[in-house]
Amino acid sequence: MTTYVPPLQEHNFVLNHVADLESVSKLNGYQHADPATVSTILEEAGRFFSEVMAPLNRVGDEQGSSLGEDGVVNTPDGFDDAYNKLVESGWPGAHLSAEWGGGGLPYLVGSVIQEMFKTSNMAFSLCGMLTQGAVEAIEKHGSDELKEGYLEKLVSGEWTGTMNLTEPEAGSDVGALRSKAIKQDDGSYRIFGTKIFITWGDQDLTDNVIHLVLARTEGAPEGTRGISMFLVPKHVLNEDGTPGEMNDLKIVSLEHKLGIHASPTCVISFGDEGDGAVGYLVGEEMAGMRNMFTMMNAARIGVGMEGLAMSEGAYQQALTYAKERIQGRLVGGSDPDSVAIVEHLDVRRMLLTIRANTEAMRALLYYAARTGDLSAHAEPEDAREDASKLLGLLTPIVKAWMTDLGVEMASLGLQVHGGMGYVEETGAAQFYRDSRIAPIYEGTNGIQAIDLVLRKLPIENGAVVESLITEMTEVLSAMSDHDDLGAFRDELTSALQDLADTTSYLAAKLAAGDLDDPLAAASPYLRQFGTVLGGWLMAKAAVAAKSEPAEHDSEFLHEKVITARFYGEHLLPQARGLVATIKAGGDLLAAASLD
Amino acid sequence: MTTYVPPLQEHNFVLNHVADLESVSKLNGYQHADPATVSTILEEAGRFFSEVMAPLNRVGDEQGSSLGEDGVVNTPDGFDDAYNKLVESGWPGAHLSAEWGGGGLPYLVGSVIQEMFKTSNMAFSLCGMLTQGAVEAIEKHGSDELKEGYLEKLVSGEWTGTMNLTEPEAGSDVGALRSKAIKQDDGSYRIFGTKIFITWGDQDLTDNVIHLVLARTEGAPEGTRGISMFLVPKHVLNEDGTPGEMNDLKIVSLEHKLGIHASPTCVISFGDEGDGAVGYLVGEEMAGMRNMFTMMNAARIGVGMEGLAMSEGAYQQALTYAKERIQGRLVGGSDPDSVAIVEHLDVRRMLLTIRANTEAMRALLYYAARTGDLSAHAEPEDAREDASKLLGLLTPIVKAWMTDLGVEMASLGLQVHGGMGYVEETGAAQFYRDSRIAPIYEGTNGIQAIDLVLRKLPIENGAVVESLITEMTEVLSAMSDHDDLGAFRDELTSALQDLADTTSYLAAKLAAGDLDDPLAAASPYLRQFGTVLGGWLMAKAAVAAKSEPAEHDSEFLHEKVITARFYGEHLLPQARGLVATIKAGGDLLAAASLD
Repeated sequence: MTTYVPPLQEHNFVLNHVADLESVSKLNGYQHADPATVSTILEEAGRFFSEVMAPLNRVGDEQGSSLGEDGVVNTPDGFDDAYNKLVESGWPGAHLSAEWGGGGLPYLVGSVIQEMFKTSNMAFSLCGMLTQGAVEAIEKHGSDELKEGYLEKLVSGEWTGTMNLTEPEAGSDVGALRSKAIKQDDGSYRIFGTKIFITWGDQDLTDNVIHLVLARTEGAPEGTRGISMFLVPKHVLNEDGTPGEMNDLKIVSLEHKLGIHASPTCVISFGDEGDGAVGYLVGEEMAGMRNMFTMMNAARIGVGMEGLAMSEGAYQQALTYAKERIQGRLVGGSDPDSVAIVEHLDVRRMLLTIRANTEAMRALLYYAARTGDLSAHAEPEDAREDASKLLGLLTPIVKAWMTDLGVEMASLGLQVHGGMGYVEETGAAQFYRDSRIAPIYEGTNGIQAIDLVLRKLPIENGAVVESLITEMTEVLSAMSDHDDLGAFRDELTSALQDLADTTSYLAAKLAAGDLDDPLAAASPYLRQFGTVLGGWLMAKAAVAAKSEPAEHDSEFLHEKVITARFYGEHLLPQARGLVATIKAGGDLLAAASLD
Repeated sequence: MTTYVPPLQEHNFVLNHVADLESVSKLNGYQHADPATVSTILEEAGRFFSEVMAPLNRVGDEQGSSLGEDGVVNTPDGFDDAYNKLVESGWPGAHLSAEWGGGGLPYLVGSVIQEMFKTSNMAFSLCGMLTQGAVEAIEKHGSDELKEGYLEKLVSGEWTGTMNLTEPEAGSDVGALRSKAIKQDDGSYRIFGTKIFITWGDQDLTDNVIHLVLARTEGAPEGTRGISMFLVPKHVLNEDGTPGEMNDLKIVSLEHKLGIHASPTCVISFGDEGDGAVGYLVGEEMAGMRNMFTMMNAARIGVGMEGLAMSEGAYQQALTYAKERIQGRLVGGSDPDSVAIVEHLDVRRMLLTIRANTEAMRALLYYAARTGDLSAHAEPEDAREDASKLLGLLTPIVKAWMTDLGVEMASLGLQVHGGMGYVEETGAAQFYRDSRIAPIYEGTNGIQAIDLVLRKLPIENGAVVESLITEMTEVLSAMSDHDDLGAFRDELTSALQDLADTTSYLAAKLAAGDLDDPLAAASPYLRQFGTVLGGWLMAKAAVAAKSEPAEHDSEFLHEKVITARFYGEHLLPQARGLVATIKAGGDLLAAASLD
């Protein structure tokens, strides 16, 4: 059984000292989210996810979801009951609009709640994530009629939502999709086509499932320009708004996956049996891709969060094991007795590596989430626009850096267990399997890196990235007040110079119209950027921890400084090794014969 | 279905130009193993493993081995027939002593054959690996009676062998084991105890299974000093040498593992039902640990090989997919049509990363195997001793660097597939799961790193590592003849200086009696060492490729240079990032509170 202990002290510390929750709570509409209230809320949420969701993580993995003969997806034992409690709790909608019944909390606070959900039970949490994406799309782009008909039920979780993009021949290249939408006299559409990789495409938990489907209207141009978004309910609504007849759509099969077994990954066919699935246009015709992108940014942050969650889960599991497992005498010690393996330095190295990376990821996630709140609520408009651009820059890094690290940290957590880590019942292997999807979906990490280099770096001629690097540099002077942060400060100084250097290198290449060298550099550059961002935020955390009055939380603050220094002195230097790789160019990649 | 195409050109190139097969074939007893003969042998072996073993890799994963109600392990469909063919082929014993029916080929050549077996079907190959370990132990330490009774059958594969070390409370700390051996009047022993994690501890393929079991004789001291090794056959032999009565041992259960499902990982109890399992002492009483270590060195090289094998397998699988999968237009290109994803630079980066690391690992493996041959057959004795010390230094690096890379490359190969990589039927996920055991068994990679730093570096006051670094430096002058190797040469020059630097740092610490800083540095230092060794051997390969007459294999040689340069310019620089980590010391590790 997976246990999950929400690290509440850490959540509150990062919220307050890295993400500046106080300033977020001063934004219009968020005044009720003051730090003390938020702390109480998180305590309650933590209890819920550790008590209700974590115990279902193993059973979800072992049983998985399956497709019944009636064409309905059956979820694992206990999911039904837990889902009812989830809806009752209101946690999934905590940061959604109060207008539709949500909790109206900042996205920043919602992110902490999401993190808890994902850490305690990643496969189950995906259902909520997709539903939120649907809420966002309908709220931003849907007609009043669609909002009235669907939003409250989706916000509460009474119904769930899905995103239907991928088709057999259209994965990363969404523009290649072939699904058709034919307009009817009443303004609705009939949808035909097959979609694959539909996460939580069906389940036995709720009365209805609301699919958001990308399809091409008649006569629409090829490529992404011709794509529209449709709302296609599993059950078409009756006049009174209740779910009525089954729509013309069918769950064809589920994928047999490496991990997230409880999350049904569906092949869905629309319009296979009759006149086509009834669908309603969301937004304008041919604006589907743009609408989808507004959802995708939040979804990419949400997937990045999975890197953090798998790392936190792997850490808790590995630490527990390392404290219990007695094995081997201390090297160089005089005690003839065996000790818990947590005493061995190489095991401590592994555990601290996971801990430091986890805390760096969390800091980045909350910083990005706070930037999201600013992009929606800051005054004046300029501030919102600035935040929005910064969020755009951070998004691919959150998604790719964190999910790559999530896999690596899950692997390290498994390693801490030795042979027991390879035995499925231990649970470490599940993190290793579950985490592996995150670098793939919502845009592969390679696509994130290309997005960063080709689309995000050039924004305002590089002014956004430049101003972020300047902001990062500011922490150095605060660090110089603390002698024990000296080595960390030196590493960060050099890492920031390196980042400025590789950024200029890429900017010069792009300015010269060279795409191959930047494309070859994209992934290592994203890795460098993430690593340095982590270093900056851990430095901020260390400075804050050292500036707190020592009387309260002194042990926590002391550990925070150690973890931050470990990140700065042991992990951050690895960014240096990427500089030459980034600058090695694309010639060899192009020249190699791959056949 | 897994397909496997043995890269014969590459095998021959590395054998001849990196591992100097010709000089090995001049060693006493290996004269028949000239390069031309070996090339023919490998072609035949390659055909066998691709045709007989590769097709069973998926079914082995899907069905796994299982424990029947009769207490016998059942192997997956097709394994029985394939095993018979394997025994007939003689491949498992190709490098074993001709005296007992083996092929008498150099270990170097046997390593290539093992690599083929592991790449085509890792789970199945483990059965052969353990059997060879048993052969080695009996040949080196067993009495004539044991040799006569068991060796021929084990060499041929008519029977299989196992290694029984681990107990519930004695994993990495073998010295903690509790199994008992009680001497009988006839000189045999009766064995009592429970062993876990016994790879291929039973099967339905052969008439007998020969267990090598570590246990403590009556009155033996605690710790590793008191351990003896016993041969415990599943069926006690009749007078005529045929398998007779079932011994007093029982397969209690099989582990449910993340991967290598076809390889049964057994819990075995000895002496649970009656008077104890009949066992025969191998070597001297209390020499069990030393005897086991002679097996373990070869086993560690064999497990290191699995890193190479999983990387090669992942590469072949990913390349095939990348050539077939059409998706997305070329970024920056004018062609509106989608291309195979192998055309996209970031996909090429992933594929070349796997290819370059695979080739670097193969070069290191063959170099180590050649060193093994020299340690056994070189003249005069000094040369054997030198080789033996070098092999000792290389062994933990082969084991840990290669198996860590194997996991990382399997993960990258999965990533190349996008969403299809996460679907089990694709096969990429199996490499990701199977590869994950290799950093754990035969001594965790953390233990390898400690072995490198605390035991291997100090040999002859550091003269062995020093002379290896000197040997590595020699390639630089040959590189300077080739302009296109200039950037690689610069990186290698700096990487070798860094390695000399961190080696001195560790030597100074050890000389000062400081263990904590070296222990904290052990894993990153091993990683640095492996990365630089890979750079050196790829440089040797590049120089050799450029020195070959251009008329034959010119395409292969051209690609070899590109891959070597990619390693040198894109991957090798990452060793630089480890220097600061290595020197960061152990203070933070010791100071952190992990509870």
